[in-house]
Amino acid sequence: MRNAIVRIGVVAPASRIAPDLALQVAAFARRLYPDRPPEIIFHPQCFRSHGHFAGDDACRAAAFVEMADDDSFDALWFARGGYGSCRLLDRICVSEPARRKTYLGYSDMGSLLAFLYKEGVTGAAHGPMPSDLNRPGGETAVARALAFLVEGAAASLEPTVSATTPTAAFNITILSHLIGTPFEPDLSGHVLMLEEVSEHMYRIDRALFHLTSAPSIRRVAGIKLGRCSDILANEPDFGQTEEDVVRHWCGVAGIAYLGRADIGHDVDNKVVPFGAWPRPGRPLDIF
Amino acid sequence: MRNAIVRIGVVAPASRIAPDLALQVAAFARRLYPDRPPEIIFHPQCFRSHGHFAGDDACRAAAFVEMADDDSFDALWFARGGYGSCRLLDRICVSEPARRKTYLGYSDMGSLLAFLYKEGVTGAAHGPMPSDLNRPGGETAVARALAFLVEGAAASLEPTVSATTPTAAFNITILSHLIGTPFEPDLSGHVLMLEEVSEHMYRIDRALFHLTSAPSIRRVAGIKLGRCSDILANEPDFGQTEEDVVRHWCGVAGIAYLGRADIGHDVDNKVVPFGAWPRPGRPLDIF
Repeated sequence: MRNAIVRIGVVAPASRIAPDLALQVAAFARRLYPDRPPEIIFHPQCFRSHGHFAGDDACRAAAFVEMADDDSFDALWFARGGYGSCRLLDRICVSEPARRKTYLGYSDMGSLLAFLYKEGVTGAAHGPMPSDLNRPGGETAVARALAFLVEGAAASLEPTVSATTPTAAFNITILSHLIGTPFEPDLSGHVLMLEEVSEHMYRIDRALFHLTSAPSIRRVAGIKLGRCSDILANEPDFGQTEEDVVRHWCGVAGIAYLGRADIGHDVDNKVVPFGAWPRPGRPLDIF
Repeated sequence: MRNAIVRIGVVAPASRIAPDLALQVAAFARRLYPDRPPEIIFHPQCFRSHGHFAGDDACRAAAFVEMADDDSFDALWFARGGYGSCRLLDRICVSEPARRKTYLGYSDMGSLLAFLYKEGVTGAAHGPMPSDLNRPGGETAVARALAFLVEGAAASLEPTVSATTPTAAFNITILSHLIGTPFEPDLSGHVLMLEEVSEHMYRIDRALFHLTSAPSIRRVAGIKLGRCSDILANEPDFGQTEEDVVRHWCGVAGIAYLGRADIGHDVDNKVVPFGAWPRPGRPLDIF
């Protein structure tokens, strides 16, 4: 472990969080690491409000760029999902300090993770966010995220993440909305882990039609299905589970279905680094 | 008008309809055209049920192919939307008799219309379906569709459809799910008309991010916005209307925003032929 305290910047590229959550997350981190607590700096932008968003597009993009470009931060942690990170993509340029950071988030943050990975940033990872502290039992998720950000803890990783095959993880709907755009990363040869929340089964089916029909996605090494939680009632009953649906579309597309992944919109959501792990040029001893 | 009675086949590539609706539509057509009523043949598949769908994928695809390949039908009219037509696309080959037909539908049927147009079929059109008879005042919509199918009536067309610029019309969500797939038609130089129903504004915004970020869509002549009806409550309020959102994304993408289009999930939904109108090689005197 290096001598310096790990410094984590927090921005909210989509929806806002309450100031109380920032205090709770910082206090929780001090309890977890009483001797060497990480510094967790919440950008004031996290608490702003502009209609649906935590500040307007310019404000959210500026906060991201400010922290990403600041070499004193080791990591950028996304405060929560919601909706809105895709609106920042045409406003962001990736600087050299930004390339050296770790980025952690999921759900709507998939748009930013995809963009960063596409831009060659090796530190993007899909995993828990500060907002997970609001879930019952959410300390588990936040502790897992901090163990990854502070120690690079292998125990935080989705258990099938391997050194041999690159991985990526996405919310199904978010990845669907990147297909065919300049922000879609090249996932050739990757194990693609997918999860979903609060969608009807027919929408999950439609998004999987979309993903698996795209020639770009047909080049993945295989798909692993995370948890699909809070599935909304289908009228009439869809008659197929999420696993039936993924198996169907993988079959149509000739994509290997590799079973379940330990990710989802819940406190058990494990960390999935984008690309190879450990990261080339990022030995764990930086931590 | 040619001598033969116009024959219209009806299939349901997505969700089922009730047998009563078929009887009502046929009776309505006889009242509209007492001297020369069109023959409207509902394929029994329309009334089948398989979970979410009007029969399983094989059954729905077979019904479509059976009627599309039958030269005795002048047109295929899609019974209703719902969800499921995308599941048929890898099961359909377009035959020569299929190329000579007119196809009419909207909403989920956009997947099939896109596929047919991409395959070079010149008879695809976005417009009312038999299920519109269930709407209050729905006779207007069904009469408009029949006037198009039976007489090629110019009065049925969206008023800005012109001979000079090709057009296409889609439900926003449906087109979003075709981007980057082999089923996405080339809309270069087209006026693209878009409509939506029963979505949250943040989802409309996200789908428009997707559409307008795709290089393929950036080649359209411009976008016209149809009606976005039954928009679901956004929490917090999104703070932008559907027209704000379309203007925003057209601005980011450098796509011309051409104002409103007279289409939508309602009884005023006008017919938008895909491509040029009148159709090359399809003089109106075939009717």
